[in-house]
Amino acid sequence: MNLNDYIASIEDYPKEGVTFRDITPLMANGPAFAQATQEIVDYAREVGAEVAVGPEARGFIVGCPVAYAMEIGFAPVRKKGKLPREIIEVEYELEYGTDVLTMHKDAITPGQKVVIIDDLLATGGTVKATIDLVEKLGGEVVGIAFLIELKELNGREKIEGYNYKALMQY
Amino acid sequence: MNLNDYIASIEDYPKEGVTFRDITPLMANGPAFAQATQEIVDYAREVGAEVAVGPEARGFIVGCPVAYAMEIGFAPVRKKGKLPREIIEVEYELEYGTDVLTMHKDAITPGQKVVIIDDLLATGGTVKATIDLVEKLGGEVVGIAFLIELKELNGREKIEGYNYKALMQY
Repeated sequence: MNLNDYIASIEDYPKEGVTFRDITPLMANGPAFAQATQEIVDYAREVGAEVAVGPEARGFIVGCPVAYAMEIGFAPVRKKGKLPREIIEVEYELEYGTDVLTMHKDAITPGQKVVIIDDLLATGGTVKATIDLVEKLGGEVVGIAFLIELKELNGREKIEGYNYKALMQY
Repeated sequence: MNLNDYIASIEDYPKEGVTFRDITPLMANGPAFAQATQEIVDYAREVGAEVAVGPEARGFIVGCPVAYAMEIGFAPVRKKGKLPREIIEVEYELEYGTDVLTMHKDAITPGQKVVIIDDLLATGGTVKATIDLVEKLGGEVVGIAFLIELKELNGREKIEGYNYKALMQY
């Protein structure tokens, strides 16, 4: 099964000149979603992950099934104001302005081997902020997995030196 | 394993007099997260679900692992502006004002048996809007699963006549 067959490409969305890669057809297809998850499970095992971390909301889509399949924990990264206990936070840059991502202080045990999971590597801002949060908590980022890498946006430069895998590239 | 042992109760959050039930300790514990997911998988099989539907962001946390484990599709319910293709929408009431939830028009096949999954049954506004979306698309809601029901908020009245299950009740 070629996972690319389950990605919808929407021209000029969200703005002219941009092609949006939509993963919802992949999620809608049980066997395709299962295969994508399994490929990330294989990668996460290979790098020795002990806990999975993913940013809301789409990082939960693949990250939570991977954690379930490996029977490891999942630690959510959320926008400010969403996590009820003691948090740490990191500010990161958006196209216009900045935003803040947070994690619970007890989400990672120091020294724990972490796999970060998100749907998309675009400019890399979100994943870099997630790396910063994990490392602030003493976690070791042993791998980063994406469904899709948008190569021309050069997000890989922001995660240089880290092991990563993208199941599909555009 | 008693899943309740993995729910953190935070007094006076988000405001005085409210006790917030936090599922992140459950998610952080691989075996507890796997057990909770498995219990919902058992329920979804029992009601004959063919596709899982969940509202962002926390509906993805359990809904996506359940879909993966059953090898069925998952259709996301999202805030307006997040889904790139043709959508339908439903307005629903919040404590103050209203909000809009959307689904892709092709997310459900007419006649498809749907299990709706979310973390929490509180006042029931989100789940009722999700039911409305699924039924607008011709889906049949055969079951609704929650990790937690907050009984005193009476959300169950909003889903009267629908089969539902909550793994924990407070």
